[in-house]
Amino acid sequence: MSEQYKYLLDESRVPKAWYNINADMPVPPAPVLHPGTLEPVTPDFLSVLFPMSLIMQEMSPERWIEIPEPVREIYKLWRPTPFFRAHRLERALETPAHIYYKYEGVSPVGSHKPNTAVAQAFYNKDAGTKALTTETGAGQWGSALAMACNFFDLDLEVYMVKVSYGLKPYRRIIMNSFGADVFASPSDRTQYGRSILATDPNNPGSLGIAISEAVEVAATSGGVKKYSLGSVLNHVLLHQTVIGQETIEQFEMAGEYPDVVIACTGGGSNFGGFAFPFLHKNFTDGKKTKVIAAEPFASPTLTKGDYTFDYGDTAQMAPVIKMHTLGHTFIPPSIHAGGLRYHGMSPQVSALVANGDVEARAVHQLATFEGALLFTRAEGIIPAPESAHAVRVAIDEALTCKESGEEKVIAFNLSGHGHFDMASYAEYLQGNLEDFAYPEEEIAAAMKILPDVKM
Amino acid sequence: MSEQYKYLLDESRVPKAWYNINADMPVPPAPVLHPGTLEPVTPDFLSVLFPMSLIMQEMSPERWIEIPEPVREIYKLWRPTPFFRAHRLERALETPAHIYYKYEGVSPVGSHKPNTAVAQAFYNKDAGTKALTTETGAGQWGSALAMACNFFDLDLEVYMVKVSYGLKPYRRIIMNSFGADVFASPSDRTQYGRSILATDPNNPGSLGIAISEAVEVAATSGGVKKYSLGSVLNHVLLHQTVIGQETIEQFEMAGEYPDVVIACTGGGSNFGGFAFPFLHKNFTDGKKTKVIAAEPFASPTLTKGDYTFDYGDTAQMAPVIKMHTLGHTFIPPSIHAGGLRYHGMSPQVSALVANGDVEARAVHQLATFEGALLFTRAEGIIPAPESAHAVRVAIDEALTCKESGEEKVIAFNLSGHGHFDMASYAEYLQGNLEDFAYPEEEIAAAMKILPDVKM
Repeated sequence: MSEQYKYLLDESRVPKAWYNINADMPVPPAPVLHPGTLEPVTPDFLSVLFPMSLIMQEMSPERWIEIPEPVREIYKLWRPTPFFRAHRLERALETPAHIYYKYEGVSPVGSHKPNTAVAQAFYNKDAGTKALTTETGAGQWGSALAMACNFFDLDLEVYMVKVSYGLKPYRRIIMNSFGADVFASPSDRTQYGRSILATDPNNPGSLGIAISEAVEVAATSGGVKKYSLGSVLNHVLLHQTVIGQETIEQFEMAGEYPDVVIACTGGGSNFGGFAFPFLHKNFTDGKKTKVIAAEPFASPTLTKGDYTFDYGDTAQMAPVIKMHTLGHTFIPPSIHAGGLRYHGMSPQVSALVANGDVEARAVHQLATFEGALLFTRAEGIIPAPESAHAVRVAIDEALTCKESGEEKVIAFNLSGHGHFDMASYAEYLQGNLEDFAYPEEEIAAAMKILPDVKM
Repeated sequence: MSEQYKYLLDESRVPKAWYNINADMPVPPAPVLHPGTLEPVTPDFLSVLFPMSLIMQEMSPERWIEIPEPVREIYKLWRPTPFFRAHRLERALETPAHIYYKYEGVSPVGSHKPNTAVAQAFYNKDAGTKALTTETGAGQWGSALAMACNFFDLDLEVYMVKVSYGLKPYRRIIMNSFGADVFASPSDRTQYGRSILATDPNNPGSLGIAISEAVEVAATSGGVKKYSLGSVLNHVLLHQTVIGQETIEQFEMAGEYPDVVIACTGGGSNFGGFAFPFLHKNFTDGKKTKVIAAEPFASPTLTKGDYTFDYGDTAQMAPVIKMHTLGHTFIPPSIHAGGLRYHGMSPQVSALVANGDVEARAVHQLATFEGALLFTRAEGIIPAPESAHAVRVAIDEALTCKESGEEKVIAFNLSGHGHFDMASYAEYLQGNLEDFAYPEEEIAAAMKILPDVKM
């Protein structure tokens, strides 16, 4: 008898609405605070950076928010994404568990990021924005937004961390191919960038500096340019929920429902996009799916950080958010999953972990790459190092089933492919990678300078 | 009204048989000759390199050859591949033509190559082969065979052109990730390699040398190791015909049938895989689809070469084939579509062009990249430089329709993505690429030393 590997949905099944978990959260996230006054921000404050439609989504209590048709039309270039049963991985592990994965790597830029990039570009175009600014590390987010801005005829300035600009040129070239302007950050284009270069001309840059430059350009443009963020915020996670919604429908095709769902988390957009629709079923439909957020041991925000108020960025220009944090001055070790190196976390994901609705699990770097190669040799696809954290946890869950004999249904989101990360695989294959100890003292030091919020 | 972008087939629609065009060729290809005697080869001669099942396919007159179930099971990891209507490209070109494309870049290694790699690995495993050898240039073929050998638990030695081994490490790392051994060629592992290194220790290697090394290792292994080729031969093109068969079914879903089909051609496997099922309809079903083979102007085998007998390799170790050739000593300029730099051509494709069943068209390098970026900005996907030749011809056909007002249906095969070719795009964007003049004198010189075949 032939086994079913893939579950494909016709493009008519691209979801018609995003799922807003704020409507169902047992304990809603705390309000976002102004970084100067430490008082709750107003829409007016945010409107310097974002169009009002996105600010309204950020604060909306509505459970379902309709996806505009022009956004759905672009989603259809790659969505619905495929959903697979990993028969060959199951056999390699000799597990009785059923392992499924959703694959977001089929998007043109190879990750889940375009789900929100396209939406943000649409709403900005609709509001009369002429250009967007953003930051990017290795370029995953920047290339997604470059594609989206190209589709909606918006200009885009990307501030790319200087060390990545030099060492990882391929995603930069993708951004150029879509017509975006990419600048090594710190740059001489902003006051903040020039102030850094004045004291340190060879500064290699950081995500924190790049955010500050992108924010400054938008904030001083007189409303012509807006700023776009690829994770953390509620409206970003909202746009990603097409992933989990499609997966639930594909599980119906497979005639199963998951006991465990897993996604990696850095700022939270991939995790939220995959897991929130399953949490919706847990909250409202009596389901009891275990939901696991996988993070790197070297940047253990959810597993080791405090759940408290902190700045979103190093320069204390971004809003203050109640979230799991390692301290806004903490700089995680240079692991190969660059997309998971963030000191903070989505306020929604943080609140769900604090309330016990989501389990957080930290994974070491070597175990992550070992799991990734096990997956590659069974299923063919090479995972992005970020996604490999979810692969590893799924394998661990399946091996637990092997011991217990349980025939659990396990699903994870393969958020992207590793085509632009092969140098990291080479380092692993050559034995050059190492695990990082939990940076306890550095985190303790960073936690001493949190904002003094009295709420 | 919503437009249909994608046409998806369920995995049960993976074809059950390959289409063998030898059964329908108006003028069959001439027999393959022994490079020493210049007499037709026997199966025994070929059996040093290939298992008998593949040799029988090479010579089979049967129209349909059943696909073994274990091969179909692996095809299902990514097949059937999607088929798209390029609405956004049509609008960008303001053409009345309907443009469709099949996308083979969704395979785990990003090209059409696994369609035959998996089949060849299966038949070798079935025949008791322990290990395969092959050559690779930039690594497209090597990574496909590495994946296939991993799936069927065969060892693999890949001889990779030394200059690519150093300059293009990412596909090499993919091969390593699947467990293959990759050696820079010329290597000290073969007599031929050592003889080259003895006189020229810094020889940068060539595909011709790498073929000779891979063939030598297999031929001197006492039957333990066999050799595998990724293009040119009949059985290779045969395995690729799943592409065109699926496309015909997807055209039925779209309610159209193509007036023009286009694929790029280097050795012919991508072209044959896409176009042969349409030629079958032309030959047997009264269809009149125009079939175009797109090749680079810098290596104009079909458009400028002679249709005559020549050696398959530079060292005159491979069989002599009647084909379009630029001469086996001709070395094409270093264009960025490395997969199209071959002096010869599939004997089947050559015979079809000679008989007027297929039109050949040469494309310049700059026009190719210009077309590729036009496609990327409309459809999101970045084409491999090889595939971009077909993109360019499709755009030209659509622009001709714009002038004439004809609403033709145009289809091309996007044989792979360009994720590992971003350096080439950077060169284009920076204005560093150039068109090559037709290398008339070099080809004329090479054509003077063809084998002296009296048939």
